Amino acid sequence: MRNVISAVCISCGAEHEADDAAYTCKKCGGILEVEYDYGYIKSRLTREVLAGRQDFSMWRYRELLPIEEDSRLSPLRVGWSPLYRAKKLGERLGLQNLYIKDDGLNPTASLKDRASAIAVVRAAHAGKHTVACSSTGNAASSLAGNAAAMGLESFIFVPERAPKGKLIQLLVFGAHVISVKGNYEDTFRLSAEAIEKYGWYNRNAAINPYLSEGKKTVSLEIAEQLGFKAPDYVAVSVGDGCTIAGVWKGFKDLYAVGLIDKLPRLISVQASLCCPVNRAIETKGPLEPMEENTLADSIAVGVPRNGEKALRAIRESGGLTVNVSDEEILAAMGLLGVTTGVFGEPAGVTGTAGIKKAAEQGALPPGAVIVSLVTGNGLKDTVSAQKAAQEPSFPGAGMIQIPPDLDVLIKEMESGFGNKFS
Amino acid sequence: MRNVISAVCISCGAEHEADDAAYTCKKCGGILEVEYDYGYIKSRLTREVLAGRQDFSMWRYRELLPIEEDSRLSPLRVGWSPLYRAKKLGERLGLQNLYIKDDGLNPTASLKDRASAIAVVRAAHAGKHTVACSSTGNAASSLAGNAAAMGLESFIFVPERAPKGKLIQLLVFGAHVISVKGNYEDTFRLSAEAIEKYGWYNRNAAINPYLSEGKKTVSLEIAEQLGFKAPDYVAVSVGDGCTIAGVWKGFKDLYAVGLIDKLPRLISVQASLCCPVNRAIETKGPLEPMEENTLADSIAVGVPRNGEKALRAIRESGGLTVNVSDEEILAAMGLLGVTTGVFGEPAGVTGTAGIKKAAEQGALPPGAVIVSLVTGNGLKDTVSAQKAAQEPSFPGAGMIQIPPDLDVLIKEMESGFGNKFS
Repeated sequence: MRNVISAVCISCGAEHEADDAAYTCKKCGGILEVEYDYGYIKSRLTREVLAGRQDFSMWRYRELLPIEEDSRLSPLRVGWSPLYRAKKLGERLGLQNLYIKDDGLNPTASLKDRASAIAVVRAAHAGKHTVACSSTGNAASSLAGNAAAMGLESFIFVPERAPKGKLIQLLVFGAHVISVKGNYEDTFRLSAEAIEKYGWYNRNAAINPYLSEGKKTVSLEIAEQLGFKAPDYVAVSVGDGCTIAGVWKGFKDLYAVGLIDKLPRLISVQASLCCPVNRAIETKGPLEPMEENTLADSIAVGVPRNGEKALRAIRESGGLTVNVSDEEILAAMGLLGVTTGVFGEPAGVTGTAGIKKAAEQGALPPGAVIVSLVTGNGLKDTVSAQKAAQEPSFPGAGMIQIPPDLDVLIKEMESGFGNKFS
Repeated sequence: MRNVISAVCISCGAEHEADDAAYTCKKCGGILEVEYDYGYIKSRLTREVLAGRQDFSMWRYRELLPIEEDSRLSPLRVGWSPLYRAKKLGERLGLQNLYIKDDGLNPTASLKDRASAIAVVRAAHAGKHTVACSSTGNAASSLAGNAAAMGLESFIFVPERAPKGKLIQLLVFGAHVISVKGNYEDTFRLSAEAIEKYGWYNRNAAINPYLSEGKKTVSLEIAEQLGFKAPDYVAVSVGDGCTIAGVWKGFKDLYAVGLIDKLPRLISVQASLCCPVNRAIETKGPLEPMEENTLADSIAVGVPRNGEKALRAIRESGGLTVNVSDEEILAAMGLLGVTTGVFGEPAGVTGTAGIKKAAEQGALPPGAVIVSLVTGNGLKDTVSAQKAAQEPSFPGAGMIQIPPDLDVLIKEMESGFGNKFS
């Protein structure tokens, strides 16, 4: 890879060959980060080059990605999700320049497709026939889907609490699914042992540094969609820490090659009862485990594997932390749907819940350009959506059940059903 | 609308003003079809114009759509869904040039977004604040989502059997949902009565001729994605008949403006126990009602409202009819997922099931360019997907549940779990 210099340990700084199959630091076991030759890339990835490029997927940024020039790319169309101006939602929150990046419109319906696309491309290039990971759900379904499209086999380790909708995706994509009777930590450990034993390609985002490189494409898109400007704030829901680290890496890379002239501040949003990353920021203390106590399953991570990268990203960006309750997450789901037509899963709307809370606390300037990253589609977890629609705070109109009789409908309309406007 | 000449009744040929609010023929009550000024459009919508256009959504074809030049467009990004070359699936079916058009990646996860986008644009232009429809689900969720994004209210009539995942979308988008204790026919009738009484904008595809104009954009995209070539065959699942009529209209319009030089043959695929359109073709008889007897809820239509348009489309194209059982639909769901990474709902994969059956019967030339239109996302109906994964014909590897213990996994692998390859 001419564009990649090395993989550097974020803990001890040791440099590794970029193609090295050992994904964690050989010296200290720390997590690696990919270092690019920005001078080389700067001359090749310009606004003009991008303006002429018809590839509207994450591969439009291939100069900034850790793939070989001759690598076979993954067939599913990942990335270039829409960035919507959320005028009505912004008005409700007192924010004039609020945007929603709907990453639930990726092929398997979450942002994780960006990481899995990199994984299957690298796995195929390395001659591997099988890929594997542990996941609370979205990384799993994205790996299964991208592997199927690429012609690879997949082994997926899921904790038993993963929502049904997510398991079914795995099965339909032909994955070998191993449901582990235990929490995310147990699941992760078993997957690591099996991957080592069987020599599968490792798509555990916390270990494999190439995956956050895939995730960073969401930031490259946001900046290009805003006309090569970084927003003032980007709100991201945080679980394992890999996504927010990837988001930050994307903006830093763009800044390094001169495509944006400032960096955004990150808003790290976690669930109040499972917020180890935010707690470490707020207390300036070390990362300490917490219970996995939130219905937002994608961010229910008590021991964040990429916590250090996440902490560094939040700190470097001068970021904010916001913790939101499950009730606030459910309320954000309805608010987002009603005002924008975007349906996010609980972890997908957690960023929006955080923006709402921060705005209400006066922590966000009304004129700031703010992007809320919706990381997964609400269809993945309709049980939570059902709960959201039953909350007293739900802003929608609701449902009546009646026989096929206009007079009955008229009575319902007169009794108030017709006046419930969002 | 400078590009539109009139709306012509498909039954009696009577011409109507294009902007007329009466959606069915004033003379005979027949369904109207929009007629364009192809000479005018031909000079404005060329390959060169399209090559320079950065709008990758259905609005890229606005010259061929029934909207005013100054209409406010709908905010959600509808259309430009990916067209995938399905090599592995093609190999299994003995077809060398098989493609999958994944319309499940639309904002509310189905092709119906294309019709609803037109509806909300026309409704807003007409100064309406409320839109309404009856639907088995996808038209409903697409209308609710597009209305929310456009800032309109929606009233949605659904038959009580609609899958839960689809109802939840409606609620999250803030729709007024009226669940009707009856079948699709009862639901449709009540919605028509209510729309008349309250003066809402009518998004019932069978009545409003502008909606199939939105649906036709899927064909415009297919042709452009194939390099301005029409495929030899396009397989479409058929319920109400509006989608296949729209698909056909798209190719005919493209042919009329000289952007393609031939027309495809349609493959009309219905469920064996609910196939009124195909039966009328096969028996050369009239459309007669059938029971709504299939798990593919989006095409469980016993009395197709757009049946005449559908029949005309299939006949004009020299089309084929294929009827598939629910078992064949479920098997197609797994086959599509395992070979392509695309997850379709039952009606979404019915076209693929039809192609499989037609190929096995030798009805399709192995070298023909064939497109299977996947009309909706599998996440909308995970209950059916669960059934699919439990069928003996399911081609995937399946699931095991184990404690977090490598030795247990090794035993499972040795007992055969590791050898189940798709």
